[in-house]
Amino acid sequence: MLAIVSEPGFSLEELQLAARNHGLPLETLRDAITPVGLHYLLIHFDIPQVDAPAWRLRLGGRVERPLELTLDELRARPAHTHAVTLECAGNGRALLSPRTVSQPWLAEAIGTAEWTGTPLAPLLEEAGLLSDALEVVFTGLDRGVQGGVEHAYARSLPLTEALRADVLLAYAINGRPLPSQHGFPLRLIVPGWYGMTHVKWLAAVDVVAEPFRGWQQEDAYKIHRSEDDPGTPVTRMLPRALLAPPGIPDFMSRSRFLVAGPCALVGRAWSGWAPIERVEVSIDGGARWTDAALDEPLDEYAWRGWRTTWDARPGEHELCCRATDAAGNVQPAEAAWNTGGYCNNAIQHVQVTVS
Amino acid sequence: MLAIVSEPGFSLEELQLAARNHGLPLETLRDAITPVGLHYLLIHFDIPQVDAPAWRLRLGGRVERPLELTLDELRARPAHTHAVTLECAGNGRALLSPRTVSQPWLAEAIGTAEWTGTPLAPLLEEAGLLSDALEVVFTGLDRGVQGGVEHAYARSLPLTEALRADVLLAYAINGRPLPSQHGFPLRLIVPGWYGMTHVKWLAAVDVVAEPFRGWQQEDAYKIHRSEDDPGTPVTRMLPRALLAPPGIPDFMSRSRFLVAGPCALVGRAWSGWAPIERVEVSIDGGARWTDAALDEPLDEYAWRGWRTTWDARPGEHELCCRATDAAGNVQPAEAAWNTGGYCNNAIQHVQVTVS
Repeated sequence: MLAIVSEPGFSLEELQLAARNHGLPLETLRDAITPVGLHYLLIHFDIPQVDAPAWRLRLGGRVERPLELTLDELRARPAHTHAVTLECAGNGRALLSPRTVSQPWLAEAIGTAEWTGTPLAPLLEEAGLLSDALEVVFTGLDRGVQGGVEHAYARSLPLTEALRADVLLAYAINGRPLPSQHGFPLRLIVPGWYGMTHVKWLAAVDVVAEPFRGWQQEDAYKIHRSEDDPGTPVTRMLPRALLAPPGIPDFMSRSRFLVAGPCALVGRAWSGWAPIERVEVSIDGGARWTDAALDEPLDEYAWRGWRTTWDARPGEHELCCRATDAAGNVQPAEAAWNTGGYCNNAIQHVQVTVS
Repeated sequence: MLAIVSEPGFSLEELQLAARNHGLPLETLRDAITPVGLHYLLIHFDIPQVDAPAWRLRLGGRVERPLELTLDELRARPAHTHAVTLECAGNGRALLSPRTVSQPWLAEAIGTAEWTGTPLAPLLEEAGLLSDALEVVFTGLDRGVQGGVEHAYARSLPLTEALRADVLLAYAINGRPLPSQHGFPLRLIVPGWYGMTHVKWLAAVDVVAEPFRGWQQEDAYKIHRSEDDPGTPVTRMLPRALLAPPGIPDFMSRSRFLVAGPCALVGRAWSGWAPIERVEVSIDGGARWTDAALDEPLDEYAWRGWRTTWDARPGEHELCCRATDAAGNVQPAEAAWNTGGYCNNAIQHVQVTVS
């Protein structure tokens, strides 16, 4: 069902998706916590209209005691808050060549919010997992057609991930109830994983004994290096650093203009695999690199601020930044191609004219 | 400086703008008041970072007594709240052929919010207009390069418009302080006018005795029917109706799937020239039209809700809606072309498969 194209022009279908879904304006990388209206959003189908008093979370399947909970009951349970960075697995897709036709992100499909909710694991324990429990399936209220198949958006997690202490059923963002576009009344938060994992408008949690084969699990979000490759699932975020472009922009090209002199360069870096250990900056398109200073960590799975001072000299410059995590993962100059256009964490390039 | 192209593919520069700026997801036309994170945003340059305690509004130029006001002083003045519909003047640009290369909106560059602020007219009166006062220039803190010219975003209004009782200096949206992307700490609201008028991050109000010739006034936002046409300014919003697409979407094409039977069709319609008087709906691509019922008006310059019931029969359908205002302006099947791609209020078409 995938269309893969080589032409430089983007189609009307790609533009329709770009007009609906939106990214973080990169200058707001200056904010450690992203305001709600600036956080990236990818909404596969429509934003459902949810009748909150009638809504229930149903937790069932391979458990001894199925549960049904109201929003008030969930809010009355122990609450945890974590700052968590979310990134769409398709971030960078539009920069791949050839290109997979889907939501055409450049680099802006990111955001970091403070998510508040109740941990999932104690609920699964209360329900009592049966001995054949293998995965947990999360199903949202959003319904549509993708790849020719009508379905409600649903994703599964292996039991070991679902039972992590930091996996939340979140009902608040940045201290306020979830707005409709972020999954009101409830969404899953699995720190460290790409965005497709954090199921919005959550309605059902089902423990299953067989691997889940839903469209968003089996047909989407897999890395296929070629059409014949059976594929491996997309899971945790690869390391990435982004910088807040300095100076002022050109409206159309978004290239930058800057007055010569010392210039503070700031940005954020994250990885779902391990803490960020190093961020390097280049002012010549990646030929030479120098280390940036890292800010204090914000939270275990939140991006990490970094900063350096650039003595900007007149001329044309190409700024880049590159993240390395404690597991040794380094951002590549070019990411390995795959048929879904996922996980393109190639280093960012920002053109700056200094005068 | 305008690039006008005929090829169907959208450029990387257009995509960059579409990824930054975002539109209203059309299913949320069900909401009379648009939540902040869903309201359309067009941000020419970067979102400025404003130091609120140090910020002042400076009102000067051709006045007897220049004023300088803090945000607290503005908030202590008489406050008005109006529900106002804002639409980008470039809404529909990407559907024109040939196409002007700029922010490539389809139909989603709209939103309606409750704006709270203090009226501008009493402030101008307190400052005392000099007898040669002709226009009022509004300058924001956002700065960049457009059309090869570096400038802070600035627009002017004729004195008669600036003195209208409903023109506000707004510091709140939907009952909360403006978020940064909507112009914190202050923006201009001129009900009925296209979006370029409502200057965000407002820093200066200058009364001038000569017509303002800034880039955003003189070089942008004019209707030129050809390259030789000297042009007329874009001012008030032309009538437009949009419907919330029924049923469920296909992820990629955004076409719709619906089960046969009675289907409530709802939408909103607005005009900056006069109240909406009529909305018609077609299920056959505009060959035949029937009248929709209008909801009670929300506010003088807010969109008006409308609804009808469609007895959806199996097959392929093309839904359209068409607004007429009390001044006799009717939405066209095709809008008159212009070099800037402005004011394309051609009727919307939504493909629906009923089964």
